[in-house]
Amino acid sequence: MNKLTDSLHVENAVNATLGDSLKRMENGHSLFETAIRAMDVPVCDAFTQSGSLAPITFRAGTRVLEPSGEIADSFPNSIAASRNSILAAGDTMTAQVSGKRVAVLFSGGPAAGGHNVVAGLKQILGPENTLLGIKAGPKGLLKGNMFEITGVHILQIRNTGGFHFMGTDRTKIEKPEDIDKVRTVCREHAIDAIVIIGGDDSNTNAALLAEKLFSDVKEDGSGVQVIGVPKTIDGDLQLGDELPISFGFDTATKIYAEKVGNLLRDTGSSLKYWHFVRLMGRSASHVTLEVALQTHPTIALISEEVRECDITLSEIVDSIAGTIIERAKKGLNYGVVLVPEGLIEFIPGFTTMIDDLNDKMAQFKDELSGMNIREQLLLMYSKLTQSHGELLESLPDPIKYKLMADRDEHGNLPVSQIETETMLSSAVKARISELDENVKFESLNHFFGYEARCGASTVFDSSYTYNLGATAGSLILDGRTGYMASLSDLDKGARPLGIPIASLLDIEIRKGKPAQVIEKALVKLDSPAFIYFESRRKLWAESDLSSSPGPVQLWGPTSRQLPKTVALNRQYSSLDFRFSTAQERE
Amino acid sequence: MNKLTDSLHVENAVNATLGDSLKRMENGHSLFETAIRAMDVPVCDAFTQSGSLAPITFRAGTRVLEPSGEIADSFPNSIAASRNSILAAGDTMTAQVSGKRVAVLFSGGPAAGGHNVVAGLKQILGPENTLLGIKAGPKGLLKGNMFEITGVHILQIRNTGGFHFMGTDRTKIEKPEDIDKVRTVCREHAIDAIVIIGGDDSNTNAALLAEKLFSDVKEDGSGVQVIGVPKTIDGDLQLGDELPISFGFDTATKIYAEKVGNLLRDTGSSLKYWHFVRLMGRSASHVTLEVALQTHPTIALISEEVRECDITLSEIVDSIAGTIIERAKKGLNYGVVLVPEGLIEFIPGFTTMIDDLNDKMAQFKDELSGMNIREQLLLMYSKLTQSHGELLESLPDPIKYKLMADRDEHGNLPVSQIETETMLSSAVKARISELDENVKFESLNHFFGYEARCGASTVFDSSYTYNLGATAGSLILDGRTGYMASLSDLDKGARPLGIPIASLLDIEIRKGKPAQVIEKALVKLDSPAFIYFESRRKLWAESDLSSSPGPVQLWGPTSRQLPKTVALNRQYSSLDFRFSTAQERE
Repeated sequence: MNKLTDSLHVENAVNATLGDSLKRMENGHSLFETAIRAMDVPVCDAFTQSGSLAPITFRAGTRVLEPSGEIADSFPNSIAASRNSILAAGDTMTAQVSGKRVAVLFSGGPAAGGHNVVAGLKQILGPENTLLGIKAGPKGLLKGNMFEITGVHILQIRNTGGFHFMGTDRTKIEKPEDIDKVRTVCREHAIDAIVIIGGDDSNTNAALLAEKLFSDVKEDGSGVQVIGVPKTIDGDLQLGDELPISFGFDTATKIYAEKVGNLLRDTGSSLKYWHFVRLMGRSASHVTLEVALQTHPTIALISEEVRECDITLSEIVDSIAGTIIERAKKGLNYGVVLVPEGLIEFIPGFTTMIDDLNDKMAQFKDELSGMNIREQLLLMYSKLTQSHGELLESLPDPIKYKLMADRDEHGNLPVSQIETETMLSSAVKARISELDENVKFESLNHFFGYEARCGASTVFDSSYTYNLGATAGSLILDGRTGYMASLSDLDKGARPLGIPIASLLDIEIRKGKPAQVIEKALVKLDSPAFIYFESRRKLWAESDLSSSPGPVQLWGPTSRQLPKTVALNRQYSSLDFRFSTAQERE
Repeated sequence: MNKLTDSLHVENAVNATLGDSLKRMENGHSLFETAIRAMDVPVCDAFTQSGSLAPITFRAGTRVLEPSGEIADSFPNSIAASRNSILAAGDTMTAQVSGKRVAVLFSGGPAAGGHNVVAGLKQILGPENTLLGIKAGPKGLLKGNMFEITGVHILQIRNTGGFHFMGTDRTKIEKPEDIDKVRTVCREHAIDAIVIIGGDDSNTNAALLAEKLFSDVKEDGSGVQVIGVPKTIDGDLQLGDELPISFGFDTATKIYAEKVGNLLRDTGSSLKYWHFVRLMGRSASHVTLEVALQTHPTIALISEEVRECDITLSEIVDSIAGTIIERAKKGLNYGVVLVPEGLIEFIPGFTTMIDDLNDKMAQFKDELSGMNIREQLLLMYSKLTQSHGELLESLPDPIKYKLMADRDEHGNLPVSQIETETMLSSAVKARISELDENVKFESLNHFFGYEARCGASTVFDSSYTYNLGATAGSLILDGRTGYMASLSDLDKGARPLGIPIASLLDIEIRKGKPAQVIEKALVKLDSPAFIYFESRRKLWAESDLSSSPGPVQLWGPTSRQLPKTVALNRQYSSLDFRFSTAQERE
């Protein structure tokens, strides 16, 4: 069909007014995207003490962190400067800082609110300073791939989800030659400061860069400041009152909670399905715990509890099967089971057993190929180390079969790719038919993941990140380096903070080698959020007390809700948040 | 841990005010659910002519349907009464109808808005008549499992998604003995009318029941009226201006569109993934087309086009691979491909080939067991019918392997369970490496399904269904039977209609036997929605013009949006809808 006929064809068929308005909605201009760009973002009182938005200074606060000696030795510049003290917000900056060139980048997986970090940063730096955007993450920094961020850009990205404004990647800048490359790029582009928006690893990287670029980067002997901003949907970058949560967690968990709430409604409607849902969130179970508090599912597994209470996979399967049978007796042949993405890694011995199994299956490939599955298993029991063999043998049959079968092209089974929800539901099915063959059990498996990393930012995440950006900018204008921007007191107007990143580091064994990293914050079994969950879950399993938190609302009476885990753990008295005490409830 | 310590433990750990408010949010009382119950629903002018909400009468409209002779023979009562004429709204009912006992049930998969059908129905029947809720779908009707629906119930369910108020199932009431059971139940419970809220099959069932219960059910010789309400997220129950769309489609597609929009933002952020997304929606591609119009993905496959243009699976794979390679040349190593759930069934010969393959694999089980995959395929080429063998042989290797491997415990591969998105992405991967091994291609596969059937109802679906319920109630009070409630002119205040269901029926071969069914409305290639899509998709594939329609909004500036396919196909000039001309834009 040639172009002319084609467009005539369209003109005849499509209402012209509607067709025109649909075309205007392309390229990031859906009605929603256009409307959210125009939304106001509240700013902390700290930034408006002078009557208008202005950068602030910082002073040493009351809380001092205590890194190990080895860490202190590795970060002499940073720790001498910070004295491990968390910075508290001071007064409005009186000195006019101008001419600074600040570069900002995204690092790691996307999370909602990243664009507002950039917007808040740009606003606080003001027209006297320059903000540069680094394309495609840390790799872009190594290449010097950057552009100047203008006010027009900010109008485009305000309040929108995703990291697509600049892109991101997972490059780590650790090797001396890479740090040298950064030095060169900073000199070439006359960069005075770098803002790294990322998770625990990216902030570890920020600490290293801050230390290595502390001085003697520029010709005048000055260094390059490096400031981190805490991002991750997993919620495992937390530090109590001083860092209540990383950004992106609220949006991601609200998106998952909507979907889980919908499935819970589906179970009560169709009256015949058990949905097994694996939730993204890496190792920690913060996401699962938050979604459970939002929806009150029949069952929610928490990896940290599995490890701490030494719960075996068979015990988990037994417990789920038991609940299903109990409910079936009441005529409730349905429910929802939440499974944290990292569960497998928390089952004692499981990860090393899989590694061992991968090795032994490769080693005895020829023998195995002629055997049926039972013979294969018998061989493996004898070839694995004793404890691994016992663990494998103790697993429910359907799980054993899946572990032997689900192999990639190299014969490996990476732990991260185990479809835990599918494995659990088939093991539960088998267990139920052993225990009571009259119980009806029909299951559906789901993985909720990528669709939430780039979700439209909640009002909380938009507000939080705009102020994190303003905090990061203020830290830079106040001459600080090696700090992570944070905000405390989210229920009382929010207070900007600077957390000395090096002081957060600890030694952890990664891939067999000691590494200096920010310890991942796991769910604590003595935290208010877990204790509250524990006090309710039996009731949730027995009866139907589920709720559907609905789609994320940007307007209207339900648009202002903190994550429940954050409100509980920080002992706030409500889910409402305030980023300014002057702020009226919309 | 004993109960006392436990609750003390919680009391000490959890802020009491917060803990109390969290408990109040259980059991369907999330902040969202509480808020939406209080939302007003607009009512069509037709129902408020008298100044307050009142039932209306109907009169024969201008459009007359033309069922085949065979259908007319099977539905003599219904067709004699309706003369195949679509009923138009008449005046406010002047006669006070009282004492009617109306039973309502959900049938088939859940869809958002079902609860508001019940709410609208209850409202229009008023306190003079009784509304009974049938539990767990048509099966509940056969058992006489019902309860009286009160005003308190309505306050609970108003504007909420799901069918959990009464539950649903997929029982078909077709056999004479089942129809007799319904007669008995109607007599026992003194039921005067039944409202069946369901999809095409359920409405076919409603037509049959209406015909069979036309008279002589009660002792006085009267019959039982049966009215259908058009529900299905698939959108395949449509009839042009007179039935612009089934309810639930808007909510489901907006939920999928949010997620697809998020994935599109993820691609532009991570810069390295191709997401292959299979979308629920059964045979027709309405859901995929709507989601494509909402998000402007890189590629969206439309099953009806595949069938009509006789496109082979290899051609589909080639075309996707070609787009991916073209984009890679521009540095765009990412994108989103939408795949309708029913695609496979529309590929010429595919379904019968799979059936043949299932048979032959069972027949030659022993020979196959000793062979490698290539030998197995060679055997199958020779054993299948010639055209099936050629089709199998023509498929990309990864698809062949999957078709041979993905077998259930009985050795079958049900077409509906083929993970088309996974099959396509692996075939595309193989094709790309044949064409250009330097092209980076990393894919992630998704199925978006169950989480949208029970989503919170959009403002459109809530408004539409409340008025459908009022229409169904009016049809009953006006003494009609065998009609489906509908609304036309959704952009101009909406007009209630009654569609004679029997007149919609056609003969279709199902499971090898002729059946009288409502023909599924498929995507028409000459419809404005498809023509508009076709005019834009090349641009969407070449450049990044994607939009993210965001989460469904119940409040605020973006809460009022019709499905784009509906607005296009009905030649509306905007996406705004009006269920009352008096209604102010909120």
